[in-house]
Amino acid sequence: MARRRERPTGDAARSLPVAVDAMGGDHAPGAVVAGARQVADERGINVLLVGPEGAMGDTGGLPELHASEVIGMEDDPAQAVRRKKDSSLVRAAEAVRDGKALAMVSAGNTGAAMAAALLRMGRLPGVIRPAIATPIPNPGTGRPPTVLLDAGANAECSAAMLVQFAQMGAAFARQRYEVSHPSVALLSIGEEKSKGTPLTKETHRLLAEGALGEGATFVGNVEGRDFLHGVADVVVTDGFTGNVALKTLEGSLRFFIGALAEILGRPSLTDAAQAVVAELAPLAAELDPEATGGAMLLGLDGVCVISHGSSSPTAIVNAVTVAHDLAVAGLADAVADAVAPADGAAVPPGARMPEVPAAGR
Amino acid sequence: MARRRERPTGDAARSLPVAVDAMGGDHAPGAVVAGARQVADERGINVLLVGPEGAMGDTGGLPELHASEVIGMEDDPAQAVRRKKDSSLVRAAEAVRDGKALAMVSAGNTGAAMAAALLRMGRLPGVIRPAIATPIPNPGTGRPPTVLLDAGANAECSAAMLVQFAQMGAAFARQRYEVSHPSVALLSIGEEKSKGTPLTKETHRLLAEGALGEGATFVGNVEGRDFLHGVADVVVTDGFTGNVALKTLEGSLRFFIGALAEILGRPSLTDAAQAVVAELAPLAAELDPEATGGAMLLGLDGVCVISHGSSSPTAIVNAVTVAHDLAVAGLADAVADAVAPADGAAVPPGARMPEVPAAGR
Repeated sequence: MARRRERPTGDAARSLPVAVDAMGGDHAPGAVVAGARQVADERGINVLLVGPEGAMGDTGGLPELHASEVIGMEDDPAQAVRRKKDSSLVRAAEAVRDGKALAMVSAGNTGAAMAAALLRMGRLPGVIRPAIATPIPNPGTGRPPTVLLDAGANAECSAAMLVQFAQMGAAFARQRYEVSHPSVALLSIGEEKSKGTPLTKETHRLLAEGALGEGATFVGNVEGRDFLHGVADVVVTDGFTGNVALKTLEGSLRFFIGALAEILGRPSLTDAAQAVVAELAPLAAELDPEATGGAMLLGLDGVCVISHGSSSPTAIVNAVTVAHDLAVAGLADAVADAVAPADGAAVPPGARMPEVPAAGR
Repeated sequence: MARRRERPTGDAARSLPVAVDAMGGDHAPGAVVAGARQVADERGINVLLVGPEGAMGDTGGLPELHASEVIGMEDDPAQAVRRKKDSSLVRAAEAVRDGKALAMVSAGNTGAAMAAALLRMGRLPGVIRPAIATPIPNPGTGRPPTVLLDAGANAECSAAMLVQFAQMGAAFARQRYEVSHPSVALLSIGEEKSKGTPLTKETHRLLAEGALGEGATFVGNVEGRDFLHGVADVVVTDGFTGNVALKTLEGSLRFFIGALAEILGRPSLTDAAQAVVAELAPLAAELDPEATGGAMLLGLDGVCVISHGSSSPTAIVNAVTVAHDLAVAGLADAVADAVAPADGAAVPPGARMPEVPAAGR
C-alpha cells in the first residue's frame, strides 16, 4: 500500500503559502491577484502567486512562482496538462507536491485543475478515484451546505467508488462544516431502495450494510427535488449524474434570479423593488456561489480548491481561506483515514487511474 | 414485424371519448371529475370517466366506465397493475386498446400508468421501449417548451433506445408544438462530443451520422444549465439522468417560488408585493406545470397523457384537450413512422419489454 506524503502540521503548516493559479478564471489575473492580496492583507494567510513573470499585474509584493504557460478554459484538460508542463496550473500542483505550498487554488479549467492535481500530487493510498465535491446551499434551513459528489470528475463509476465518495464526503463535511456525524444520502429516482440502476441498488446495499462505519449515517435515497432543503449533509452520485444535476440547479437558479432582476428593474417598480430587494438580500447571500469557497477535490494527496470560473476577488479570498484552513486541519489525512479499511483489508479492486477527468468546468 | 392497431380517424376519432382515470391524483376524484366536466362542457370533447360506481361524486351525467379498484400513489407500479385488474388505470388503458376510447389521461401513479398502458395497449411496431416525454417551459423566449425524454421510464438505456427517443421526441414536437423541423440535443456534461459516458458518445455518433433523417436536426450536446433557455426543441437522455434533472429543475423552481412568496407575503411589503406580483404573473404562467397538459408516453400503441399528481381541474382540462387533439391528429402513427427504418431494415435488437417502469413519481 502506498504511503501518504509527509505533511507539515501546526505552525509549520500555517507558515506555508497557498499556491494560487493567477491565470485561472474569467477575470484572471486581475480579480485573482486582487483576491490574493486581500486574503494576505486581511487574514494573514501566506500566498504564492503562480503565473508568467510580469503578466500578473501589480502583485503588491506577494511572492511569485513563475510559469510561462497558461491553460485556457477551452483547452482539453488531459492534453493541456501533458503539453503545458510550465503552466501555472501544473506549477501550482508541483508546489504542493514538493512541500513548497500548503494547498492550491484555481478558478480556471476544472478538468485541467483536476488532471494537474492528480498527475502531480497523486491519489491518497486506497483511493480508487478522486471526486469533485461541491457545496450546495440550504437557504433558510440553518443547516450547512450539502456536499454533492462526484460533481463531474468520473462519468462512469462503480459501487466501490460511490462508497468511497460517501466516506470522503463525510470526512469533508466533518472538517469543513463541523458536522460531527454527517448524514449521507444516495441520489436516485425514488426513495425506495428498489428504485434506480444496478449501480444505485448495489451502492445502496453496501451503504446500508454499514460501509460508512461509525462516523456517519446512511439515510437512503434522495431525489433531485430534495436539493436546497437540507435533506442530507452529503449526497453521493456518479460524476455524470452529479454534473447534470449541479448544472441544472445552477442554471435554474441563475434563470430565476435573472428573470427577477429584470422584473425588479422595470421603471414601474422603482419603489417596490427597493423594498423587495432589501428583503431578498439574505436569501441571495445564502445562494451566492462566491461564499462557499468553491469545489474541493477529494482523494488527492494534497488540498486543491477550484473556485468558480467567474470568481471575484471575494471568491478568491474565500477559496484561499478554505484551502488554508482545511490543509492546516489535515483534510487529506482525514480523507485517507475515512477510506482506509478498518480491518486492514486490501484496497478495493478496480483502481484504474482516471487520466481524463470527465467534465470540463 | 407487428402491425399497428387500426385506429379511427377524422370524425370517427373525434366522436370517441377520452378515458379519464377519475381516481388518479392528490385531489381525486373531486378535481379530476370537475376538470372532466369542464372540458366536456366548454370544449365539446367527449369524456369517459373511469372509476368505482358511486365513488366519483357528481359526474354531471358524463358516461362512466366502472372499475372497482384504485391504484394509489405509493403502490408498486408493476405489482399493482398485475394485481388490480379491475382498477381505474387498467380499465382506462383497456378502453383505448378496445377502441372504446380515443386516448387516456391519468393524474395518478406515473409508473403504474406507464405499466398499465404498456401492458394493455402494447408498444408500437419497432419501438424498443416507450419513454416519458415531459415538456420543460422556456419562459420569455417565445419558443415552445423543450421536450425532455426519457424523464423516468427506463433507468438503463442503450444508444439504440436513445436514438429512438430522439426520433419519437421529434415526432411529438412536430405534432404538439407545430415545430416543422425540430432541433434535437443530447444531454451530457460538456458541449464537446468527447464528453460524457460511452452511452452518450455512441448516441452522439449515431445522431451525428444522420439517424434522425430529414425531419429533424441534431444540434449536439447540451448541459443541465441549458434548460429553460430554449436551447433545443427536444433533449434526449436516459431515464435515470432525465428523472434526476427534471426533479432538480422542479425542486429548484419550487424552492425559489416558495422563498419569493414568503418574502412577498411579509407585512412590511404589502404595497410593494402587489406591484411585483402583477409583473411576475406572466412568468409564473409560463412556468405553471398545469398549463403544459402533462407528460406524454411515447412509443405506445395509443395515446396516454400523465398529468401532475397535484392536478387541478384546469390541469385536467388541458391534459384531456392535449390527449384528444394529438390522438385525432394521429400521434401514435407519427411516432411509429419516425422510428420505422426508412430502408425497411430490421428492427434494432435488444427489444426486451420493460415490465417495471423505473420511476415512480
